[in-house]
Amino acid sequence: MDPAFPELTEDVIDRMNGAEPRLRSVMTLLIRHLHAFVREAALTHDEWRTAVDFLTRTGRMCSDTRQEFILLSDILGVSMLVDAIANQAGDGITESTVMGPFYAGLQRELKKGDTILLREERGEPLLIKGRVADASGAPIAGARVEVWQAATNQLYDVQDGNQPRGHLRATFTTDEHGEYEFKTVLPPSYPIPNDGPAGQLLERLGRHPFRPAHVHFMITAAGYRTLVTHLFLAGDKYLGSDAVFGVKPSLVVKAARQAGGMTLRYDFGLAGS
Amino acid sequence: MDPAFPELTEDVIDRMNGAEPRLRSVMTLLIRHLHAFVREAALTHDEWRTAVDFLTRTGRMCSDTRQEFILLSDILGVSMLVDAIANQAGDGITESTVMGPFYAGLQRELKKGDTILLREERGEPLLIKGRVADASGAPIAGARVEVWQAATNQLYDVQDGNQPRGHLRATFTTDEHGEYEFKTVLPPSYPIPNDGPAGQLLERLGRHPFRPAHVHFMITAAGYRTLVTHLFLAGDKYLGSDAVFGVKPSLVVKAARQAGGMTLRYDFGLAGS
Repeated sequence: MDPAFPELTEDVIDRMNGAEPRLRSVMTLLIRHLHAFVREAALTHDEWRTAVDFLTRTGRMCSDTRQEFILLSDILGVSMLVDAIANQAGDGITESTVMGPFYAGLQRELKKGDTILLREERGEPLLIKGRVADASGAPIAGARVEVWQAATNQLYDVQDGNQPRGHLRATFTTDEHGEYEFKTVLPPSYPIPNDGPAGQLLERLGRHPFRPAHVHFMITAAGYRTLVTHLFLAGDKYLGSDAVFGVKPSLVVKAARQAGGMTLRYDFGLAGS
Repeated sequence: MDPAFPELTEDVIDRMNGAEPRLRSVMTLLIRHLHAFVREAALTHDEWRTAVDFLTRTGRMCSDTRQEFILLSDILGVSMLVDAIANQAGDGITESTVMGPFYAGLQRELKKGDTILLREERGEPLLIKGRVADASGAPIAGARVEVWQAATNQLYDVQDGNQPRGHLRATFTTDEHGEYEFKTVLPPSYPIPNDGPAGQLLERLGRHPFRPAHVHFMITAAGYRTLVTHLFLAGDKYLGSDAVFGVKPSLVVKAARQAGGMTLRYDFGLAGS
């Protein structure tokens, strides 16, 4: 079957001659795929209206503390795809994953071995330690290691008025051997915020809203590409169905049980910038 | 070059097995095209963030009297494409075009030959008349003919607190010969609302926001498909560059100058439902 109304697509594209080259090339690809989607789906007027309403409600859900379009991008795998294109890992380089919406800016500086808790948690104590190195394995001293994770109640401090701000977040600096180490508790798996349009879409698609348990890392060092990633806990039941598609096998780590709690060891490799 | 991270796209699609069939098939096409767009454009993280911000601002612009996502759909040719797929015209059947955002519900009933003005306008008087028929040309008596247009100041009543509500809108019923007739003024070309994200995008694309002069029609009759269309005035300088891609040659009509003003004659053909 011939595509319906083909000259319309060409007309839309031809009218962008006045745009600067990158915008024009991105928009040309967008128009081609958007129109092809509408044609192949034979989208009805009612479905189009449903889509307009969905996008409108998604926009209205956004506030200073909630970014529903990022959630939507996350659950459709778009955020991970953008990350995959930007950060191709190689030998000796740790894979990246999504930043997520809960990074809260630079936090207090702690010393190697300190705890990131600002109050007690019921969770099992966990020691996380390892090394930051370059692709060849040479240690990187003075790298900034930022970490953040959810509390045992499945919420980050920024979602939960009962947690002190900065709880379960901190900044470390690697020592002369490139080593970092901090104390925390086992992170929980948790549902992404699912009381808005993104959550409704997940439900209509028959998908759950959970992310497997993880700790966020952002590692920055002069001369290296900033690494944004997570460490996931082996054995979590959501590892195969992360609501935001963030899991990569190389980021799944088994914590070892030792006297006084669990220990998790992970060595990070940074790409040159 | 191999597509980046191909298993991600398959993973997103495989997770929709729980959706009802139509949603699943539409979302599968959406995910394929959306991911292909991101890959082919090699969308950067900054560009992704710009897109998230653009969609967020578009949602925030929406209110009871402003639908910025419809404007966005209009200026990207999506609204016209959905219309083209739904309404394939044939011999003797009038082509459709976009509804637009300014339809305001059923209006007062007027008699054949009445004016749709509720106050004076500086524009040139215009008589519009013709017939509503089926595809074979047989007249349809009792068809409902709804009309609406912008005032000479380029605004619809719903955009302009100085116009009485219902000004330049009305409902007519065809007589036993299928005929309709009403008095108005020549409609102006006008810019679509361009003080929001859709307008900013038009500017970045090097496009103007104007629509060529037109009168809206919605014609409804039992046993026929409802026709939503415009009549455009021949000679308008924006006919070749309508900001919402609504112009079809069969809808462009030449008004004739006669004693007392202009006259425009158009016969509509309805498809069976």
